Amino acid sequence: MSDASIGVGVLGYAFMGRAHSSAYRRLPQVATGLPLRPRLVAIAGRDTRSVAAAASRFGYERYVTDWRELISDPEIQLFDNCGPNGLHAEPTCAAAEAGKHVLCEKPLARNADEALSMWRAAERAGVQHLCGFNYRFVPAVRLARQVLEAGDIGEIHHFRASYLQEWGATTERLWRFDRETAGSGALGDLGAHVIDLARYLVGEVEEVSALVRTFQPDRAVDDAFVAVASLAGGALATFEATRLAPGRKNSLRWEINGSRGSLGFDLERPNVLLRSRGECGFTERLVTEPDDPFMSWWWPPGHVIGWEHTFVHEIEHFLGAIAGRNTVAPHAATFEDGYRVAEVCDAIERSAASGRREVVVYR
Amino acid sequence: MSDASIGVGVLGYAFMGRAHSSAYRRLPQVATGLPLRPRLVAIAGRDTRSVAAAASRFGYERYVTDWRELISDPEIQLFDNCGPNGLHAEPTCAAAEAGKHVLCEKPLARNADEALSMWRAAERAGVQHLCGFNYRFVPAVRLARQVLEAGDIGEIHHFRASYLQEWGATTERLWRFDRETAGSGALGDLGAHVIDLARYLVGEVEEVSALVRTFQPDRAVDDAFVAVASLAGGALATFEATRLAPGRKNSLRWEINGSRGSLGFDLERPNVLLRSRGECGFTERLVTEPDDPFMSWWWPPGHVIGWEHTFVHEIEHFLGAIAGRNTVAPHAATFEDGYRVAEVCDAIERSAASGRREVVVYR
Amino acid sequence: MSDASIGVGVLGYAFMGRAHSSAYRRLPQVATGLPLRPRLVAIAGRDTRSVAAAASRFGYERYVTDWRELISDPEIQLFDNCGPNGLHAEPTCAAAEAGKHVLCEKPLARNADEALSMWRAAERAGVQHLCGFNYRFVPAVRLARQVLEAGDIGEIHHFRASYLQEWGATTERLWRFDRETAGSGALGDLGAHVIDLARYLVGEVEEVSALVRTFQPDRAVDDAFVAVASLAGGALATFEATRLAPGRKNSLRWEINGSRGSLGFDLERPNVLLRSRGECGFTERLVTEPDDPFMSWWWPPGHVIGWEHTFVHEIEHFLGAIAGRNTVAPHAATFEDGYRVAEVCDAIERSAASGRREVVVYR
Amino acid sequence: MSDASIGVGVLGYAFMGRAHSSAYRRLPQVATGLPLRPRLVAIAGRDTRSVAAAASRFGYERYVTDWRELISDPEIQLFDNCGPNGLHAEPTCAAAEAGKHVLCEKPLARNADEALSMWRAAERAGVQHLCGFNYRFVPAVRLARQVLEAGDIGEIHHFRASYLQEWGATTERLWRFDRETAGSGALGDLGAHVIDLARYLVGEVEEVSALVRTFQPDRAVDDAFVAVASLAGGALATFEATRLAPGRKNSLRWEINGSRGSLGFDLERPNVLLRSRGECGFTERLVTEPDDPFMSWWWPPGHVIGWEHTFVHEIEHFLGAIAGRNTVAPHAATFEDGYRVAEVCDAIERSAASGRREVVVYR
Repeated sequence: MSDASIGVGVLGYAFMGRAHSSAYRRLPQVATGLPLRPRLVAIAGRDTRSVAAAASRFGYERYVTDWRELISDPEIQLFDNCGPNGLHAEPTCAAAEAGKHVLCEKPLARNADEALSMWRAAERAGVQHLCGFNYRFVPAVRLARQVLEAGDIGEIHHFRASYLQEWGATTERLWRFDRETAGSGALGDLGAHVIDLARYLVGEVEEVSALVRTFQPDRAVDDAFVAVASLAGGALATFEATRLAPGRKNSLRWEINGSRGSLGFDLERPNVLLRSRGECGFTERLVTEPDDPFMSWWWPPGHVIGWEHTFVHEIEHFLGAIAGRNTVAPHAATFEDGYRVAEVCDAIERSAASGRREVVVYR
Repeated sequence: MSDASIGVGVLGYAFMGRAHSSAYRRLPQVATGLPLRPRLVAIAGRDTRSVAAAASRFGYERYVTDWRELISDPEIQLFDNCGPNGLHAEPTCAAAEAGKHVLCEKPLARNADEALSMWRAAERAGVQHLCGFNYRFVPAVRLARQVLEAGDIGEIHHFRASYLQEWGATTERLWRFDRETAGSGALGDLGAHVIDLARYLVGEVEEVSALVRTFQPDRAVDDAFVAVASLAGGALATFEATRLAPGRKNSLRWEINGSRGSLGFDLERPNVLLRSRGECGFTERLVTEPDDPFMSWWWPPGHVIGWEHTFVHEIEHFLGAIAGRNTVAPHAATFEDGYRVAEVCDAIERSAASGRREVVVYR
Repeated sequence: MSDASIGVGVLGYAFMGRAHSSAYRRLPQVATGLPLRPRLVAIAGRDTRSVAAAASRFGYERYVTDWRELISDPEIQLFDNCGPNGLHAEPTCAAAEAGKHVLCEKPLARNADEALSMWRAAERAGVQHLCGFNYRFVPAVRLARQVLEAGDIGEIHHFRASYLQEWGATTERLWRFDRETAGSGALGDLGAHVIDLARYLVGEVEEVSALVRTFQPDRAVDDAFVAVASLAGGALATFEATRLAPGRKNSLRWEINGSRGSLGFDLERPNVLLRSRGECGFTERLVTEPDDPFMSWWWPPGHVIGWEHTFVHEIEHFLGAIAGRNTVAPHAATFEDGYRVAEVCDAIERSAASGRREVVVYR
Repeated sequence: MSDASIGVGVLGYAFMGRAHSSAYRRLPQVATGLPLRPRLVAIAGRDTRSVAAAASRFGYERYVTDWRELISDPEIQLFDNCGPNGLHAEPTCAAAEAGKHVLCEKPLARNADEALSMWRAAERAGVQHLCGFNYRFVPAVRLARQVLEAGDIGEIHHFRASYLQEWGATTERLWRFDRETAGSGALGDLGAHVIDLARYLVGEVEEVSALVRTFQPDRAVDDAFVAVASLAGGALATFEATRLAPGRKNSLRWEINGSRGSLGFDLERPNVLLRSRGECGFTERLVTEPDDPFMSWWWPPGHVIGWEHTFVHEIEHFLGAIAGRNTVAPHAATFEDGYRVAEVCDAIERSAASGRREVVVYR
């Protein structure tokens, strides 16, 4: 492992803040030849007691209650934004402008305009930037990408994906239901993952036709959307996300059909890649072999990993980019990718409103 | 069983002709209290040798090489059209006008205009009419309908369905690839089933946005389509069909999510109904209990039935309608249903061409 | 199809009588080049009204209430015993002695002595004999045998199989619970299938250690057994059957592990053969291709068949043997196979009683 | 979290040493109200360079190359033995005698005599002792235990379990193949887990009949075993383990059938508990709800955990026992449990040798 370290400042201590913090802590123990040793400098949150407890639990040197203190902290070189969507743009741009490398959770922003400004800010500042589409770092997903890059599936005809959850009928008041804070509902929260995987695995989204729905009374954001799309290269795609699918806890499923075979995946069974070579049906491959992506870090074949491990893989990749060992793209999403997904989300909302097939214009 | 019999004339001896013939033969052995005993009077086909062999094998009293002979045959009271799509309208209308009850395979016709003429002809003639959407007669599908009618799933938010096959890259020249004979490709052949089940299980299709694609060179009909739709009552739907999904032989899958639970199905495992009552995940129920729909006709629990059994159930239902015991609707599709599915298919094609969300207008 | 016909007399009109009758009726419609056309001469049963109804429904020329009339009927050349186990030996031996070919449902008899007498009687009479282990005629099982014969799985190390049902807690009084009529409980009814498949797919059973249990109060036969065995060639085996497994309707599962791969099967999903070529996991192959065993008789790929179809395949095979086209062994079970399974069952009971590993002695 | 800490010394830095070390590190971040904060004092291993690297990577204060230094280290209060089986007894007994709490990986020892001596040593010393049957700490397994304790499954009739792996044909020379170091092969390595779960979930093993096999040439330990058993309370059981099941990477499956329902599990899908309430088939429940065992420590519903998390749960439980908050039994295995499993393993070997059903005698 390198002796060099990098100071990390994280905004947010809830769900994502916890997941990222855990990954930073684990990295030195698992990644062979880690390019930079993360030093957990500070974590930011508004509630003093909670952020103090989080800092203590996760091992941060200090906590702050104003994210601006992270920006001005010279010991922090990596700013990791795990805050709610409405708090993505301003702190992230500020961090980039202060010369810090920036990792921002998905969706990158509440809309494409905001996302574009973030991408431009990061580029202008010349810092490394990564948007947290962590499912690219599921070993089975990375393996799928390798199979696709090798051309083993042939010309791609279909991508179909849905992200189904069931908790949306809750009467709790969550920031995820607030339009100002969240930007959108299932579309940005779940659909963004679907769109990112379409782009990562198959190709750019060119046109979309969509319906967006709010089923729950008094809900300010969408509960669900459905869309059809054409992808660069000619494939047809279906995208769907909902928070109202009883029995589906966290079911991000996709299937790709090509001229020479098919691939399939379900996040409720993340260690499995389904593959068909045509007429023999689908093979359930447990992606836990030592030469499967990332698996040399972990356990012997058949000893499965979980959802949280994606963050370990993702952050190691980002540290590699910061250290100059690899580039963020194509395996991680850059802010450009985050912006492009936002353009597709915006086009989906436009299509739902206009009733027309909308061309996705990337600026 | 009733002593009364009904003379049956079947047009077509290939795939569907064989499936229907088998069902007529089995019915007296399995259905308790069969309302009418089918008498296999004649089968029609153009190739003398083949139709003669089929007549002998399936037990028809005679064969004819011109379907008009079925129409003029006074011993035939039920005309069953298993011919290619391009041969649906004229013979079926002629049969209805001759006062025969008419069963026509799906899709009812090559387009909505043709389908409408068939529906009107049958209504005008006052005969019973059934369009062969046989998957309504899978026990698991009928059970799903019962669960939905009882309100056990609550208000429906989502219907998503895809019908995936893999044989479409064949270089054989089939009538299914001929626009004049088939009308459309995967859309009418597979998509029609998907749309029929949406209507049977959830509600009328109100609006669609779609993409239709021909991937294979020199193919006159579509290989695949994708669509999003809004259904009466407000549910969102996705519809998809393709003949280019390697590894998927005959995978008609649907899932319904409601406010109180979910239901799911896959035709590659036709004896199973998936059901979720919410947070406990999905239960795989083998629909083979004596009080499950149709299963009292067959075998003890766990002894599964196959694809062909749907026709036995469907035809018994039609005989019941002819005998006045039950009505064709709502459990079987009438020609009205066949027509309405055709309107949705036409709207899908219109939307693909126009790039607009198309309202489905039922005339 | 041959013009030659063969007169069939069936003993029993209940579950199995119905399944066999259905198969005889369907054979001429499906099997290409059927060697002999079955003529349904007579069916025997004790209850006049029921057997008369069955004869009418299934299309027998006549019915009798004493099975001896089948034996003395010169128009019957094939005697098919679908009666309860206690009625297997005497009528079947009488039929063989009268020169009729004999098909007897499984288990061949209530014990090995009785089974041996049946085998000897059939051999002495020089007639064709088949014991109805119909699961050999599931296409996926036959395909497994082909794969094994080709050596593709290598040297076999393991066979594990269980046959689980759930209905055993019933308080109904069934002949299957009567020791005199049934011989044994889950052992002979379900376990016999397991043992037959071990012999068909892997090899002779050499030694067994077992436990047999009656859980239900006032039950005269076993509810369940478990056994370990060594098979010829050195493989280890586990056998199990129970009628007390809630949620398992008709779950006959087996898995075979060899030095070069594995095969698996579950009767609740009978159209699927699972196969592993080692480190890539298991492939779910839908055994419905035209060149899969028996499938050219039926429907296009992906259009699944059911439990009952096994009897169509089995009886066609037996007619082929009678016509001299093929032999009953090795693909169907002869009375010798029925006897050998009975020896294994007896050894299981002996082991349960003695607490010792019992060598299976084939006389 | 408590301010009190406990000094930990771990023997072994390979597979298990790594898994335990990771768990100690994560505990303070995840477990709410952790009773004792583990202080990673020292790790022992024979190869200086490797153990030094491990100490650095996992965060131990120091490393030692002789385990005796752990025993004599007054800063260590918890001795955790992750060494090979042949190194379980002596160091663990020495640690207990030195007054340290002892955690020892499974199998507790190479045979029952050795295991008994360890249990007695720990009891004599009055220290807390835990044997690392970590699969008790899979949330789905703990939930199964809760369901069983509540009596929801009724009287238990069946336990069937197999632990299948595929790597056994390797030609590598591993300590697991050395009789002196390993004690046994698949039996102690994999079978011990199966037996432990039978005991934890259903009841004591009373009698066994078994076959044990070494298939690989020049292998000093068994590759596989199969056994049938009777459990306290009357249930029948089948136990099996093998390292020669191609396609099965780490498949520990069990199913329990009771008079009122069934439960099932597969370690290749560890977040799922299968449950049947009788005639409705099996429900696949993702055990990731906040009130599922241990899951409040982790992520939202549907965000699955992996194999390694069992150690976090297990070690927290042991710290609770050391702190006097809970007892090791019944939810974790004590050395008594480790010893009892060893008696069953010994009885399996005796039965394989004697050909007799062997009573398991617990001393």
